[in-house]
Amino acid sequence: MSAPLREPEPQGATPAIVTTPTEREIRIERVFEAPRERVWQAFTEPESVAQWWGRGNRLDIERLEVERGGHWRFVEHGPEGDSGFEGRFREVSPPDRLVQTFEWDGMPGYVAVNTAEFVDLGDGRTKVVTTSLFHTPEERDGMLQSGMEGGLNQSYEALDRLLARQP
Amino acid sequence: MSAPLREPEPQGATPAIVTTPTEREIRIERVFEAPRERVWQAFTEPESVAQWWGRGNRLDIERLEVERGGHWRFVEHGPEGDSGFEGRFREVSPPDRLVQTFEWDGMPGYVAVNTAEFVDLGDGRTKVVTTSLFHTPEERDGMLQSGMEGGLNQSYEALDRLLARQP
Repeated sequence: MSAPLREPEPQGATPAIVTTPTEREIRIERVFEAPRERVWQAFTEPESVAQWWGRGNRLDIERLEVERGGHWRFVEHGPEGDSGFEGRFREVSPPDRLVQTFEWDGMPGYVAVNTAEFVDLGDGRTKVVTTSLFHTPEERDGMLQSGMEGGLNQSYEALDRLLARQP
Repeated sequence: MSAPLREPEPQGATPAIVTTPTEREIRIERVFEAPRERVWQAFTEPESVAQWWGRGNRLDIERLEVERGGHWRFVEHGPEGDSGFEGRFREVSPPDRLVQTFEWDGMPGYVAVNTAEFVDLGDGRTKVVTTSLFHTPEERDGMLQSGMEGGLNQSYEALDRLLARQP
């Protein structure tokens, strides 16, 4: 018998809750089975980010300067080609708040501001609430229609697996 | 007799007209005494930009990739220190429309979208209309209160002088 090729899904993984609090925002809420410091590390350390952000696709972390004013840039190598993403950090307040801009090479100059809040649930779990603010309702709607939600859930499931491997 | 140290001001230079069409926008209108192609060049060629954008301060053009998706980054060396500015081009449509993001190192992650329209007035003059869109009214108001208008008029007067030297 050989080991299974696919890693088991962690128990209790549920899709992210995606809502639209205003016409220019998207709010995403998701609970992870790990303490807050560990989830913070997974969002901010390059070797961790590379293991989940690309949803199983190879991800090159070209820049990840986690400090106010620092830049980040990732290139995801997927079956349909390469996609670059980049932005800059507005606020870095470990372990509970990270604010950064987000821009996809496919729509350069369209910039969302992503605010991630890491909430310690007190039972070893962490809730991550991300709010994205766009310049216009049309840009927000374009993001919603881009397949973002499916991609996000794939990323977060990869993060579940990473957190389960490295408790 | 030696030549005057200061260059003469061109005749007819008037301050830019600054208005606020919505709570998240600033609109700036200014007429230049030069044909549209010449004004377009002054906004897009590094050797020209370096002569006016910094209002007389030394300006390093670190990047100026004038194409969709291209990045720009300038560092102004003023008497009170260095200031970095950067962004990315969303749309480049010579000679009449340039859309790019704008961010100042002093407030990283606060991104405005600047749309510049170059209007041929038909008499050898060009009107430049720039509209800046911010994520929030507070960011817009912060820009208005930053001394932007004075700095802008200094830049545009330096541009008048450049255009008068290179007709």
